[in-house]
Amino acid sequence: MSDCPAIDPPRLGEPYLLTPGPLTTSYAVKQAMLRDWGSWDGDFRAMTAEMRERLVAMLGDGHEAFTCVPMQGSGSFSVEAMLGSFVPRDGKALVLANGAYGQRAAQALAYIGRAFDALDKGDYLPPRGPEVAARLAADPAVTHVVAIHCETSSGILNPLAEIAEAVAAAGRTLLVDAMSAFGALPLPPAEVPYAALVSSANKCIEGVPGFGFVLARREAVVAAEGNAHSLCLDVHAQWAAMEATGQWRYTPPTHAVAAFLEALRAHAAEGGVAARGARYAENRDVLVAGMRALGFETLLADRWLSPIITTFFCPADPAFSFDAFYDGMKARGFIIYPGKLTVAESFRLGHIGQVDADVMRQAVAAVEATLRALGVTDPAPPAAALAERAKLGEAA
Amino acid sequence: MSDCPAIDPPRLGEPYLLTPGPLTTSYAVKQAMLRDWGSWDGDFRAMTAEMRERLVAMLGDGHEAFTCVPMQGSGSFSVEAMLGSFVPRDGKALVLANGAYGQRAAQALAYIGRAFDALDKGDYLPPRGPEVAARLAADPAVTHVVAIHCETSSGILNPLAEIAEAVAAAGRTLLVDAMSAFGALPLPPAEVPYAALVSSANKCIEGVPGFGFVLARREAVVAAEGNAHSLCLDVHAQWAAMEATGQWRYTPPTHAVAAFLEALRAHAAEGGVAARGARYAENRDVLVAGMRALGFETLLADRWLSPIITTFFCPADPAFSFDAFYDGMKARGFIIYPGKLTVAESFRLGHIGQVDADVMRQAVAAVEATLRALGVTDPAPPAAALAERAKLGEAA
Repeated sequence: MSDCPAIDPPRLGEPYLLTPGPLTTSYAVKQAMLRDWGSWDGDFRAMTAEMRERLVAMLGDGHEAFTCVPMQGSGSFSVEAMLGSFVPRDGKALVLANGAYGQRAAQALAYIGRAFDALDKGDYLPPRGPEVAARLAADPAVTHVVAIHCETSSGILNPLAEIAEAVAAAGRTLLVDAMSAFGALPLPPAEVPYAALVSSANKCIEGVPGFGFVLARREAVVAAEGNAHSLCLDVHAQWAAMEATGQWRYTPPTHAVAAFLEALRAHAAEGGVAARGARYAENRDVLVAGMRALGFETLLADRWLSPIITTFFCPADPAFSFDAFYDGMKARGFIIYPGKLTVAESFRLGHIGQVDADVMRQAVAAVEATLRALGVTDPAPPAAALAERAKLGEAA
Repeated sequence: MSDCPAIDPPRLGEPYLLTPGPLTTSYAVKQAMLRDWGSWDGDFRAMTAEMRERLVAMLGDGHEAFTCVPMQGSGSFSVEAMLGSFVPRDGKALVLANGAYGQRAAQALAYIGRAFDALDKGDYLPPRGPEVAARLAADPAVTHVVAIHCETSSGILNPLAEIAEAVAAAGRTLLVDAMSAFGALPLPPAEVPYAALVSSANKCIEGVPGFGFVLARREAVVAAEGNAHSLCLDVHAQWAAMEATGQWRYTPPTHAVAAFLEALRAHAAEGGVAARGARYAENRDVLVAGMRALGFETLLADRWLSPIITTFFCPADPAFSFDAFYDGMKARGFIIYPGKLTVAESFRLGHIGQVDADVMRQAVAAVEATLRALGVTDPAPPAAALAERAKLGEAA
């Protein structure tokens, strides 16, 4: 860890974003956008090269076999690009789903005409190694397995190591949606075998939104030639053009790239993946402890809580209304995710971005003040929600 | 025209971008990126709504039938989204090509499995109404015509009005790549019939790169349901989600949107499409006159020169080297497009963005100084290039 302050708070009274990205970025990251770049010029090509190198190195042990392919668009564009480029037209994917992002991967496969099957675990539970092994043994047609590292619908942290081991043992190929985890949770290819992962600029590296990136084994990228269903979302073509010219194939989001490079430098200065993950884990611990002290309950059992985002049950108290709660939190300086992605009535508080334990304590105080203003005296969830959690969530 | 100064020059000695976008944006546009937004929050939804309304209104007469569908990614992503969403799987497109962007549209159609044919006019000539009519009469299978408003490969301004008239008379549907023209060249749907056009944030509206947008007849968007080859590039799905929730379907490039909104306000303050187009046309006139006074020749005849970008032949003088010319211009504060997109040896100078006639005069002075430093005494092109231009270009 360096002596730099870990966070650089928002200015001018703007609210903190307790959302899973876009998130609160540092002022320095945003200041990096105060000029224009020629996207074909050598200065910008050097920025792209530095970004790609830093991202590959961030993979840790085993990164030497990997290359980085940035992709314009939101993170979902990179997920679709990964699926369309690496799953061949005659391949079949098994999607390990436990929330909206697993479902979205399945939806993308359906759009692009790739055969797929899903192992859907609902909201409370992760896919486990042995059940993945059983599914692969039962279906030899499956060529690729798609896993979500942190499923931000619920905040569940999926056990990638045991999943990767099962996939490798069955001789299949693993593709990882590491959108909200990469940069804060390690996934060294030497220990956890996979062919490719995707993430985006506006997650744990704390850049602004505008592009994503695929980190893939070079041999997998070479083999992907001709697979893609889309001109723009062709990982191989993007990579081949970038290797040949140092340029993005089509206009890059130059300002977002400049911001991201600043964010990558700050990530390294903070101490890399370990330090970033430690700050986020502390954020979670402070937030969850504070919320539990108020009487809230988490959707998930402790063992599956990620350092990225945590889902809390809505209070049963009829004085609680989510819309009023949202507005009250915003008035107190915190924007939370409006809406739920789980079956149970719940809300999510993100703990990534330029926020630290002090900000988490302020957030808990804002929750307490908001509840008081709403007249909610007990934030405990409905008994039925807890019974459902006990029934569905603790068979893990 | 307002009394506002038309341009807000770069700071800190950064170079002007004489490129067709990314281009030089105002400092105020970039300053709009100095905060973070929750992409689901009401404040950001209001920004998206204002942006969509301003873009539709910019169409002018006949805009009431249109809706705006912003799309993440570069402009090419919006082109692919338009093609994949509006050309049905059993449709057939006729691409009117005279440069790299027409060819890219054809390439996208090939990727996504839509039947297509091309009318390719080379680098010097526009597709004309009567020949489009003849092609459509000869091929009743064609359902859609794809035209490029300004083909920035050469800078040629294609005659959209006569093309649109021919397409409408044949009962086919016109899709327009207006990437580098929209916001500076009018295309009122009441006068020029088309189903959809695309442009992007970093062209004549002078925002930063990060997204594009489709402006389409609402009835065409409704009819596009189920056509798309891609989850992310589905114009109908993006529109339906945005109409229902006010949000982008997947993470929007929030900072680029904020910058674009500032750019839209400045566009209106300058005097809208007419004033923007007039400034760019003056830029072209000053640049072309200055370059011709030095001895340069334009690739195109005057009647096809656009106010967006102009292509000049490279000098025949053996002392001229493009790389040295590029570096000399950059050292003098001007980044030009490195490389050529035409068959003839040529280079392009853009005249859009936060540049005006004074900047154009400075650019000409920089060209003169660079030539002197290189020892180029006569910038005239090879005689063969002029003969080729005479042969190919004046049959128009």
